[in-house]
Amino acid sequence: MTPSTSRENFADRLQAAVDRKQSCLVVGLDPVIDRLPREVLAQIHGSAGQAGWTARSAAAIAVFLGEVVEQVAPHAVAVKPNVAFFERFGPAGWDCACRLSEKAQKAGLLVIADAKRGDIGHTAEAYADALLGDTPDTLGAATDAVTVHPYLGTDSIGPFLERVRDAGKGLFVLVRTSNPSAAELQDLEVGGRALFEHVAELVRDWGDGLTGESGLNPVGAVVGATAPEQAARVREILDRAVFLVPGYGAQGAGATELAPFFLPGGRGVVVNAARSIIFAHETSDAPWPEAVADAARNAREELEKIRAVT
Amino acid sequence: MTPSTSRENFADRLQAAVDRKQSCLVVGLDPVIDRLPREVLAQIHGSAGQAGWTARSAAAIAVFLGEVVEQVAPHAVAVKPNVAFFERFGPAGWDCACRLSEKAQKAGLLVIADAKRGDIGHTAEAYADALLGDTPDTLGAATDAVTVHPYLGTDSIGPFLERVRDAGKGLFVLVRTSNPSAAELQDLEVGGRALFEHVAELVRDWGDGLTGESGLNPVGAVVGATAPEQAARVREILDRAVFLVPGYGAQGAGATELAPFFLPGGRGVVVNAARSIIFAHETSDAPWPEAVADAARNAREELEKIRAVT
Repeated sequence: MTPSTSRENFADRLQAAVDRKQSCLVVGLDPVIDRLPREVLAQIHGSAGQAGWTARSAAAIAVFLGEVVEQVAPHAVAVKPNVAFFERFGPAGWDCACRLSEKAQKAGLLVIADAKRGDIGHTAEAYADALLGDTPDTLGAATDAVTVHPYLGTDSIGPFLERVRDAGKGLFVLVRTSNPSAAELQDLEVGGRALFEHVAELVRDWGDGLTGESGLNPVGAVVGATAPEQAARVREILDRAVFLVPGYGAQGAGATELAPFFLPGGRGVVVNAARSIIFAHETSDAPWPEAVADAARNAREELEKIRAVT
Repeated sequence: MTPSTSRENFADRLQAAVDRKQSCLVVGLDPVIDRLPREVLAQIHGSAGQAGWTARSAAAIAVFLGEVVEQVAPHAVAVKPNVAFFERFGPAGWDCACRLSEKAQKAGLLVIADAKRGDIGHTAEAYADALLGDTPDTLGAATDAVTVHPYLGTDSIGPFLERVRDAGKGLFVLVRTSNPSAAELQDLEVGGRALFEHVAELVRDWGDGLTGESGLNPVGAVVGATAPEQAARVREILDRAVFLVPGYGAQGAGATELAPFFLPGGRGVVVNAARSIIFAHETSDAPWPEAVADAARNAREELEKIRAVT
């Protein structure tokens, strides 16, 4: 095992992948059993609630997403396993997430664990260990970055920052999310500006001194594609941080709304698309692996058009 | 399996347990390998980083916490497995958390999964399924309540509320936490009051119509023991919600600071103590299971003195 201290800065690794693959696409892995291709579903015998159902479901997901990873590897820079969709299958689902993440890294993809954890100091240390650590048979051993909540403040982020500094891992802090009720708290006015802007300033502080040779900072922000106006304001504060942008594709935002998120030269942004790619067979007559590859290729191309003009 | 719709309101179940056991103690299950009793540690062969280490560690934790659950069952109303401390052992740790939670329920304890999840709609649905659902071999099948983040607003809470309404589960929303940097965001002034008060109002809205026969509401709040002044303000807004209060014991707050958290009659509060109970052997000459039982008994008695005068 390579000592983790030898790892290059995450922002540099990510931007190098963007440059090499000419792509800023992240494929979200949000598996839903009912939406798997029929051929894969046929491998699950029995129905929900029966003993062994979680293990059979996790096995089907492993087959499905294993193929998805191979199909999207030429077109995407990273995959983003959404931990919730594995956790719902218990320990079997967690095992599936670990092995899929290993497989993705071997296929030349970065792995962003979308876990949205956030807890106090000693618990944050345990989560950082679980999700960014190097213990074999844990998710952390096969991840490059993780998403976290800001609500508990600096001491909840510290243990993750250690892994950013010492192990070349990345962090994406929830700043302005893509969901309809995001505004309820995130847009509240706090001293003449929105709460999410205050969070963005904390993110800037947390990334202090960690900017890589690429000029980008591995303490990044989650900023939803559905909030381009807010994104422009976050960019004013975070002019080096990498943005992870969900909400493209199935959640409704199109590529043209993404221009305000980018730094000059089409840098500093990766865009997540999940259901529109992994379930592409639902709207295609092609064999399902081909439908997935086509969707990833098309998303990459659409995003490259935006990158070319920023 | 009993249909989940037959489940009684969580707040009623919790208050009934408090009345029956004359205790408001919750024992936090935050296992740390290095702090296990020597006799239990002897069961782990090999060292960190070797193949199989997570499985051996999880097995040791299962032995340790299995005994802890038996020892604290007469003195506590609930246990609170802190998911981070299991997740750091990967799938083996998750399996351990599931089986321990089952064991705790069989021992007559309620189980509060301290997971602090918070994500957008369809992901929140997956987390609610994972942590409050009824699928065998998942944590949800053996939990009574879960902790969640408020930062993403109402649509991130909806799927959990369905389980509160239909399956007798409980929810504890992070309102004002116990850690040193909690104030950075939570105490920010928003329209003449603190952000945590705004969050408390959302919690009140989310619990609308869900108050049980006990007069208590199962959409509760996490309010840290280290913040008694803020707790009094949260109580003004949430005059029916159950509070889950961490920060007692090892985190520094004593029982006398807890009075402002309670509703009249010593109702509506459960207090978590973790390390001061599960690692009681470190400061005791008694055999370790006895040290754990003694610590739980003492914590219960100290808390009952406070309940008696509220």
